[in-house]
Amino acid sequence: MNRDKLLDAARLLQALQNFADARDWQRFHTPKNLVLALTGEVGELAEIFQWKTDAEAAAIADDPAEFEHLGEEIADVLLYLVRLAQVTGVDLEHALADKLRKNAEKYPAP
Amino acid sequence: MNRDKLLDAARLLQALQNFADARDWQRFHTPKNLVLALTGEVGELAEIFQWKTDAEAAAIADDPAEFEHLGEEIADVLLYLVRLAQVTGVDLEHALADKLRKNAEKYPAP
Amino acid sequence: MNRDKLLDAARLLQALQNFADARDWQRFHTPKNLVLALTGEVGELAEIFQWKTDAEAAAIADDPAEFEHLGEEIADVLLYLVRLAQVTGVDLEHALADKLRKNAEKYPAP
Amino acid sequence: MNRDKLLDAARLLQALQNFADARDWQRFHTPKNLVLALTGEVGELAEIFQWKTDAEAAAIADDPAEFEHLGEEIADVLLYLVRLAQVTGVDLEHALADKLRKNAEKYPAP
Repeated sequence: MNRDKLLDAARLLQALQNFADARDWQRFHTPKNLVLALTGEVGELAEIFQWKTDAEAAAIADDPAEFEHLGEEIADVLLYLVRLAQVTGVDLEHALADKLRKNAEKYPAP
Repeated sequence: MNRDKLLDAARLLQALQNFADARDWQRFHTPKNLVLALTGEVGELAEIFQWKTDAEAAAIADDPAEFEHLGEEIADVLLYLVRLAQVTGVDLEHALADKLRKNAEKYPAP
Repeated sequence: MNRDKLLDAARLLQALQNFADARDWQRFHTPKNLVLALTGEVGELAEIFQWKTDAEAAAIADDPAEFEHLGEEIADVLLYLVRLAQVTGVDLEHALADKLRKNAEKYPAP
Repeated sequence: MNRDKLLDAARLLQALQNFADARDWQRFHTPKNLVLALTGEVGELAEIFQWKTDAEAAAIADDPAEFEHLGEEIADVLLYLVRLAQVTGVDLEHALADKLRKNAEKYPAP
């Protein structure tokens, strides 16, 4: 593993590949399907916060059941996002590094 | 870095924290705002594929401009998602491992 | 009712106002909350189609349970969208007419 | 037109059908594509509010450019949503009436 990496997802990518292969699911994992699935999970993430005030949202870790649910939905979104990168061949490290660089140029620190 | 981790995001988390702190942006990064921003980026991801057939979507890497744009949007979603985990205190490794375990129980391999 | 209108939503708007007022829900119906709620329902809509092929999606009306669920989710999105217009003061007829005109200019018919 | 209708969308449906037919776009308007396009527009709607406080969001009508943009994005979402109902055969009036009834049972007024 390279210690200079922003994100080392090698084992996650392997786990996702194995999971799909073992169930013959690669045929469902087209880019469009994965974006729809990702959208479904983002919807569940949004539902967690939709009626909360900012104060209630900030205190979500005080409620164990809600906090666990939040972790589940963040994980769900992340799994589909990383799987989408996997099936389309996007290199996450490269994409993240590029984006952080572009953001730093677009929004220079004072 | 721990070689047993599904996802090592330590440097990414540090970069996100530094980026926000340097610009005094933590006040904008409330959970609800981050979910809205994430939704905005998922929208841009969806737009890449909305009129493509499955065949065109599968061939996206053949078009350098489109493929770069795809990487940018995947990175944008990932940055907001990881930042959301950061501000809410969700441990990504823990959440991912839990989810993969639950998925394996819910959808056992044949 | 005006027969020249693209969309006559007067009774729907009244029903939404009455529903919220009767339950003292206007305080939850801030623009940001409504966008989050809308996102939640769009997620449920996406989930209906996420693993379907285009052929299966086109045949959704052949499955009564699925077709009813589709109607429910379309309605859910529509209710939050119209409520968002209501609380922000956006005139739907005006906005729709403007958009159709702009689209016709941007994408002229052959 | 029926004055008992919650929503009379007859002219909008006709306009959407004509617009697509005149451009031979019905082949792009599959249910999955329309849900992706809808997601894209919901993303643009979310972006309007993502860094606003609730107070700033509530005052959006005070900024003519922002308010017009809000109207455009609400219209964009609505156009794709109604078109999705059209291509799938969902009757909006029926779906809305059903949903309002179910919501009233699920959340009875005090």
